Amino acid sequence: MKVDLNCDMGESFGMYQLGNDEEMMQYITSANIACGYHAGDPVTMRKTVELAGEHGVQIGAHPAFPDLMGFGRRQLDCTPEEIKDYVTYQLGALREFASQYGRPVAHCKPHGAMYMRAMEDEKTARAVLEALAALNDDIIVFAMNNSAVAEMGEKMGVRVAKETYADREHTETGSIIMTRKGSAASDVETMAERVVRMVKEGKVMAHTGNDVNVTADTVCIHGDTPGAVELAKTIHHQLRKNDIEVAPAHAVLK
Amino acid sequence: MKVDLNCDMGESFGMYQLGNDEEMMQYITSANIACGYHAGDPVTMRKTVELAGEHGVQIGAHPAFPDLMGFGRRQLDCTPEEIKDYVTYQLGALREFASQYGRPVAHCKPHGAMYMRAMEDEKTARAVLEALAALNDDIIVFAMNNSAVAEMGEKMGVRVAKETYADREHTETGSIIMTRKGSAASDVETMAERVVRMVKEGKVMAHTGNDVNVTADTVCIHGDTPGAVELAKTIHHQLRKNDIEVAPAHAVLK
Amino acid sequence: MKVDLNCDMGESFGMYQLGNDEEMMQYITSANIACGYHAGDPVTMRKTVELAGEHGVQIGAHPAFPDLMGFGRRQLDCTPEEIKDYVTYQLGALREFASQYGRPVAHCKPHGAMYMRAMEDEKTARAVLEALAALNDDIIVFAMNNSAVAEMGEKMGVRVAKETYADREHTETGSIIMTRKGSAASDVETMAERVVRMVKEGKVMAHTGNDVNVTADTVCIHGDTPGAVELAKTIHHQLRKNDIEVAPAHAVLK
Amino acid sequence: MKVDLNCDMGESFGMYQLGNDEEMMQYITSANIACGYHAGDPVTMRKTVELAGEHGVQIGAHPAFPDLMGFGRRQLDCTPEEIKDYVTYQLGALREFASQYGRPVAHCKPHGAMYMRAMEDEKTARAVLEALAALNDDIIVFAMNNSAVAEMGEKMGVRVAKETYADREHTETGSIIMTRKGSAASDVETMAERVVRMVKEGKVMAHTGNDVNVTADTVCIHGDTPGAVELAKTIHHQLRKNDIEVAPAHAVLK
Repeated sequence: MKVDLNCDMGESFGMYQLGNDEEMMQYITSANIACGYHAGDPVTMRKTVELAGEHGVQIGAHPAFPDLMGFGRRQLDCTPEEIKDYVTYQLGALREFASQYGRPVAHCKPHGAMYMRAMEDEKTARAVLEALAALNDDIIVFAMNNSAVAEMGEKMGVRVAKETYADREHTETGSIIMTRKGSAASDVETMAERVVRMVKEGKVMAHTGNDVNVTADTVCIHGDTPGAVELAKTIHHQLRKNDIEVAPAHAVLK
Repeated sequence: MKVDLNCDMGESFGMYQLGNDEEMMQYITSANIACGYHAGDPVTMRKTVELAGEHGVQIGAHPAFPDLMGFGRRQLDCTPEEIKDYVTYQLGALREFASQYGRPVAHCKPHGAMYMRAMEDEKTARAVLEALAALNDDIIVFAMNNSAVAEMGEKMGVRVAKETYADREHTETGSIIMTRKGSAASDVETMAERVVRMVKEGKVMAHTGNDVNVTADTVCIHGDTPGAVELAKTIHHQLRKNDIEVAPAHAVLK
Repeated sequence: MKVDLNCDMGESFGMYQLGNDEEMMQYITSANIACGYHAGDPVTMRKTVELAGEHGVQIGAHPAFPDLMGFGRRQLDCTPEEIKDYVTYQLGALREFASQYGRPVAHCKPHGAMYMRAMEDEKTARAVLEALAALNDDIIVFAMNNSAVAEMGEKMGVRVAKETYADREHTETGSIIMTRKGSAASDVETMAERVVRMVKEGKVMAHTGNDVNVTADTVCIHGDTPGAVELAKTIHHQLRKNDIEVAPAHAVLK
Repeated sequence: MKVDLNCDMGESFGMYQLGNDEEMMQYITSANIACGYHAGDPVTMRKTVELAGEHGVQIGAHPAFPDLMGFGRRQLDCTPEEIKDYVTYQLGALREFASQYGRPVAHCKPHGAMYMRAMEDEKTARAVLEALAALNDDIIVFAMNNSAVAEMGEKMGVRVAKETYADREHTETGSIIMTRKGSAASDVETMAERVVRMVKEGKVMAHTGNDVNVTADTVCIHGDTPGAVELAKTIHHQLRKNDIEVAPAHAVLK
C-alpha cells in the first residue's frame, strides 16, 4: 500500500519569503512548484527544483491565474483558451529548470482559484488537461475525488492522482472545504490518523459527520498551515508505522 | 551561399497589437519570439508559434529583462545568476508552445537592453549562454560580430550565428548603432544592396564611411521600421537575384 | 439643453499605442483616463492630462481591476475592500498629475469588468463610491440608467451623471449590451441622430425594437470603435445643430 | 535638540508579509510607505496609513523603480522624465489614502536604487524634486549629507531633512555604505550611542575610522535589520535620556 504526499513549494517571490520548503521537503514525495503567476520567480524556481532534487522529491507544476496581488486565490474570468495557454507557459518555464537538472515534470496541480474552477467546471478542466496532454509525456494531474478534472482526465487519457487533504475538511462528495481556516481537527496526531484511514480504508469523515468513500492517491499538506512541518513529520511517521509506503504519484498509480 | 533573415515577432500584449507578423513571416527564416518579459503573452506566443509553423519559419526565443513598461529597452542591473534564470524561464515557456506544435526552439536572441549588455559584458554573455547550453540541444545564439557572446559562445561550445542589421548603421568593429532612428540609408533598394554586399563580400560601410569586414550568417530586419515589409520583400528578392539562398541559421552554419 | 461627451483615454502603455486621443479630444468634454491597472502608465497619464488641459477637456479617473493582460475586461473576484482600495490608489495617482497641471479630477468612470460589476452589484457600487466620497470634493460618478451605482450614489450623496452610449445597443432597462461588436447602427449619421434623440427626447430604441426612457447626462463614444473620430465629430455637429450644448458633466448636472 | 526617526513601512505585498510595522511604529516619527512599485499594494497602503495615524507617525512616500521582482534595489536605466512621472504616480496614490484619513504626505524618501541614484546623479535628483515641488505643499525630502538631492533641494526650494543611518556604516563624505550586511556595530547599545552622538555632536566615525561631520535631522532604522524593534526602542530611549526630543522632520527643521 502506497500514498504520495504533496505540498505547495517555491512560493517565495523576490525579497518575500514564504513557506518552509527545506523542512517540508524531508517528508513529502511531490512538490507543487509555483511558476511565477501567483508566486515564484525564476530564481526561486531554480532553487526549488534544485532542493527537490536533493531530497529526491518529484517536481510538479503549480500553475495559476496571473494574479500576484491576490496570490492566485481570486477567480479571474479567463477563456478556456487563455487558461490552456497560461498553463502551457508556466509548465514550460518550470520544465526548463527541471530539464537543466535532468528531471522530468512528473505532475501538475493547478493552484488556488484555477484549481477550484477546474474541479467544478468541465471547460476549465479540459483546458488544463489539453495543456498537459499535448506532449504526451506521462504527466499526472492531481485532482479531487469526483471532480471535473478526474472525470475528464480519464476520458482524455491523462492519468489522475486522486487527492485528499490532511489539513482541510472534506465534503460528502469527497471534495474539500477550501477555507483558509484549515481543519476542525485540532492536533497533528488526529490529522495524521485521519490520513492513515483515508489511505487504508478509503474513508474519511466529512464535515457533516458522515463517512464518505475517497481514493487517496496523494495527500496534500499545506506548507503554511501552522505546525505544517510537525504535521508532515507525524503523517509520514504514522503512515510508515501502518506499513503504508510514502512514494511518488507515479509509483502509487503503478 | 546562404543567409538567414530574422525578425522580432510576437511583441503584441493582450489588447495591444504591435508589428506586422503575418506579413513579415513571408520573407524571413527565423522568428525571434517575445516570451512575456518585455512583450508577448501566452496567447500571443502560441499564435506566433503557430504562424511561424505555417510559414516554415524557425522559432527562436527572444528573452528580455522583466520590464514591460520599458519594453525591455532599459538596462536593469541584474546579477548574472538572475539573467541566467530569466533566460531559462522565458526559453522554457516558449519551448513548451513550440513542443506542442512539434517544433524545436532553434535559436535564441536576447532582446533590447539584455542583448546590448550581453554583447559587451562577458559575465552577461556567459549567463545567457549557460542557460542555452544546459540542455545541450544544438540551439544557436545570434550575436554581433566581435561581441562577448560570439567569443564566449565559441569557448563554451554554443554555436553562434553572426548577425548584421538591414536597417541600422554598423560601427567599425561590426557592432551596430542601436538607435531607434534606424539607418541613414534612405530607401529599401539601398538597404537591400547593402545586405547583399554583407553576405557576398563580407563587407559593410560603417557609419564612419570606412569599409569593415563582417560575417553575416543572419540579418535582422526590425518589424517596426517604417516600410519593414517592403524592406523585407526587397531584401529577399535581391538576395535570390544574387544567387544567395535565404535559409534558416542551422543551414547557414552547416 | 446640455450633454457631456466622454471617451476613454490614455490607454497606451509603454511602447504600445492605443486610441486616437489627440483627435478625439477635439470633440469631447470628459476624458476617462486609464490609471495603470488595465492600461496607462505614468508617462502616458501625464501626457494625457496635459492633452486634456490643452483642449479644455475635463479629467476623469478610469480605474480598473489589476489585469493588464486582460485589459481590465475580465471579472476578478475581489472583495469590496480591495475594490475600494484599488479605486483609491488609481484615483490618487491620476489626481497627482491633474494637480500638477492645476486641474481637478472632475469625474470617475470605472473601466470594463469593474464598471459592469459596479452597475449590477450593490456592494461593488458602494465600494467604488466610498473611494470617491471620501474626500468630499464634488467628484461626479458616471453610471448607467437604473444601475446600482446610480441608485447608491444618490443615497450616499455622490452626484451621478447618467450615461448612455453612442456606439452600443441599449437594453429595455437603459443598460447597455457590452459587446465589442458595437452597435447595430451601421453609419455615423444614424448613431448621431440616436444620440440627439436620447438627449432631446430622453428616449432610445432598445435592441428589442421598443423605445425606452433614458437620461443622457453624458454619452460615451469608444475611441477604438472603427470610425470613432468621424463619429465623435458627427455627434458633436448634430448636437449643436439641434441647439444642444456640449458641456462637461458638472455643467450638465448644474 | 530634536531628531526625527524614520523607517521603511508598508512593504508587504498581497499574501507576503514583511517588516514589523506595528512594533516599529511605536518608536519612530516618520514612516516611509511603499507605494506599489517595489513593494506595497493598495490594501497594505491603506492599512499602513491607518496604522501611522493611530501612532501619530508622519506619513511619507517611498517611491521606487517599477521592479517588484528586485524589490526596487536594482538600477533601472530610466530617463529623468520617467522618474519624475513614476514619483508623481506613487506619491499621488499614497496621498489619496492619506487624504482619506485627513493626513498630509509630510515627506518623501525614494527607495533603494532610486534613492542611491538620486543621491549621486544631479538629473535624477532634479527629476525627483520636480515631482515633489510641483504642488508647492511644504513636503520635505530625506537626503544624505553632501548628496545631489540635498544640494539640488536647496536650490529648488524643497526643504531637505539630512539623513543618517542607525544600522549602516557611513563614509567620510557622510554618505552610507548601502550593503545589506548592515553595520559593523554589533550591539544595539553601541548603535544607539552612535545615533546620540550624530545628533548631539554632529559627528560619526566613518568606516575608515576617522570622524566625519554629519547633520542628522532624521535617522533611518531599517525594519528588516535583525533586532530592529529592540534597536528602535533603545535608540528612542537613549535619545530621550540625552534630552533629545524625538519629533517629526517638520518640527526638527523648524
